[in-house]
Amino acid sequence: MPPSDPAELLARARAGERRALGRLLSMVEGGGERAQQVARLTFAPSASVEQVVGLTGAPGAGKSTLASGLVAAARDSGPVAVLAVDPSSPWTGGAILGDRVRMQDHADDPGVFIRSMASRGALGGLALAVPEAVRVLVASGYPRVVVETVGVGQAEVDVVGAVDTAVVVVTPGWGDSVQVAKAGLLEVADVFVVNKADRPGAAGARRDLEAMLDLDPDRQGWRPPVLATDALSRSGVAEVWEAVDGHRRWLAASGELEARRRRRLLDELQAIVVRRLEDELRAGSGGARWEEVTAEVLARRLDPLAAAELLAAADH
Amino acid sequence: MPPSDPAELLARARAGERRALGRLLSMVEGGGERAQQVARLTFAPSASVEQVVGLTGAPGAGKSTLASGLVAAARDSGPVAVLAVDPSSPWTGGAILGDRVRMQDHADDPGVFIRSMASRGALGGLALAVPEAVRVLVASGYPRVVVETVGVGQAEVDVVGAVDTAVVVVTPGWGDSVQVAKAGLLEVADVFVVNKADRPGAAGARRDLEAMLDLDPDRQGWRPPVLATDALSRSGVAEVWEAVDGHRRWLAASGELEARRRRRLLDELQAIVVRRLEDELRAGSGGARWEEVTAEVLARRLDPLAAAELLAAADH
Repeated sequence: MPPSDPAELLARARAGERRALGRLLSMVEGGGERAQQVARLTFAPSASVEQVVGLTGAPGAGKSTLASGLVAAARDSGPVAVLAVDPSSPWTGGAILGDRVRMQDHADDPGVFIRSMASRGALGGLALAVPEAVRVLVASGYPRVVVETVGVGQAEVDVVGAVDTAVVVVTPGWGDSVQVAKAGLLEVADVFVVNKADRPGAAGARRDLEAMLDLDPDRQGWRPPVLATDALSRSGVAEVWEAVDGHRRWLAASGELEARRRRRLLDELQAIVVRRLEDELRAGSGGARWEEVTAEVLARRLDPLAAAELLAAADH
Repeated sequence: MPPSDPAELLARARAGERRALGRLLSMVEGGGERAQQVARLTFAPSASVEQVVGLTGAPGAGKSTLASGLVAAARDSGPVAVLAVDPSSPWTGGAILGDRVRMQDHADDPGVFIRSMASRGALGGLALAVPEAVRVLVASGYPRVVVETVGVGQAEVDVVGAVDTAVVVVTPGWGDSVQVAKAGLLEVADVFVVNKADRPGAAGARRDLEAMLDLDPDRQGWRPPVLATDALSRSGVAEVWEAVDGHRRWLAASGELEARRRRRLLDELQAIVVRRLEDELRAGSGGARWEEVTAEVLARRLDPLAAAELLAAADH
């Protein structure tokens, strides 16, 4: 049995004890007092050495195979961790297992740490746990972290938006590029990958993405490259990691790295504060004013929007 | 052009003017002052005549065809409205169109009103808009409302949980019944439908669902019936509506109807209050204390969990 003291666990994780690291991540997922202790320990004054890469795309796009290839490419410069996140879709239970199997290439490599995070019904909770889990991995000696989403949806866009470099994977011939735009991924993508590029339609998919990027004037100094891979044979995968590194260099040189991290920290704090209020209200500990207004609503004398207005007015 | 005064619009909607009703629903979706006015008008002191039915299930399960059949069955006792909701999946743009096409059976029936609600990136917003949209429909003369989800996921479970009677649709042979359990739908379902029941595996799917219900001791007096339909040929669909009506009678007789509605109102109020806080924080109007704590986090002297703790302590 590993110990239950977070500081002791962190020391062991740093020394390479994988079970200690797993335990710390479970504490983060679990929330409460333990999670707070872990947060205190891992919130380093300067963690600018870290490199957090997001990977998302439609189901079946080959994200896991690509993640596995990226790990192999990144592995040359040091340890790498993969966080496979499934925040929203309860219908993909099978996919998680399949994905984990494909990552077994790295099962025997002590420099690669792989962890799945899924949390049915606690969407907000999982989105909150990811940044802290990343800090735990960095503090434990994995400065490079690939956050891979399993499903797709707004929650995944949020998760993948909260990284240094977001890689968006599409496949040829599925109208994926249009879906990418609809999903709001055009805005968060830093690198595009057309995977399964041996299939018909690959050139068309690249063209579509380039055309959409042409139409997007909101880029400040970085135009996402559109790369082609065949992740299964690892063809093109090293180039993707080079593009990720290139983006990272641009982030650092432009000052955007620090700006992004500040924005992420603020988003995270906001999400935690909102979550606390939610938990408080759900626990029925909203205070006397809350009780009063609630009674009016239940008596159907006050509609919910007007009630919220009243509660907000009382706050100021 | 319809007028922009909500009271005038509601009067016209009650008189059967569909564009006025559409305008009111757009106001609800839009939020702000207009939405508040609409909420005030439609929050009736007693709306117990209404019947709100939810319909959810995996993509391709035939929800829209079943919804269309349910409308036909329910239509005999008065006007019916359908609210097709797509809160979370930005990848299903095509499906919405296809679904609407299948509902065209009722396009010429003035007693049937169909409306799609989708809101990319504003998940909370849409979940909040649904209860108010239902009240607008009821107030406009559609006491029966079918809320159909297009996608699947936690957001849909939440939306469909907020009805009088939740109908969950599965198809044979896809392991759907297991997915239903994983999705948390076992808890919210009041009626199960195995659609496309002419396909192999239909009997097995029904058996699986019954077996899972056997294992669920948390039911208070209502065991969800498991029905078989072939929605395309409308076979079995009238029986589904009968089951829905049966559940409604049980709700009323057991006192559970009033209890559910009270719970829903509280949930709605909580969600609105939380949403307001989110909007405030995002707008940067969190107050002096918020600015102070934020600065500490950005300086990396305080981790986000500890910061939230400090902010909460200051509240009390």
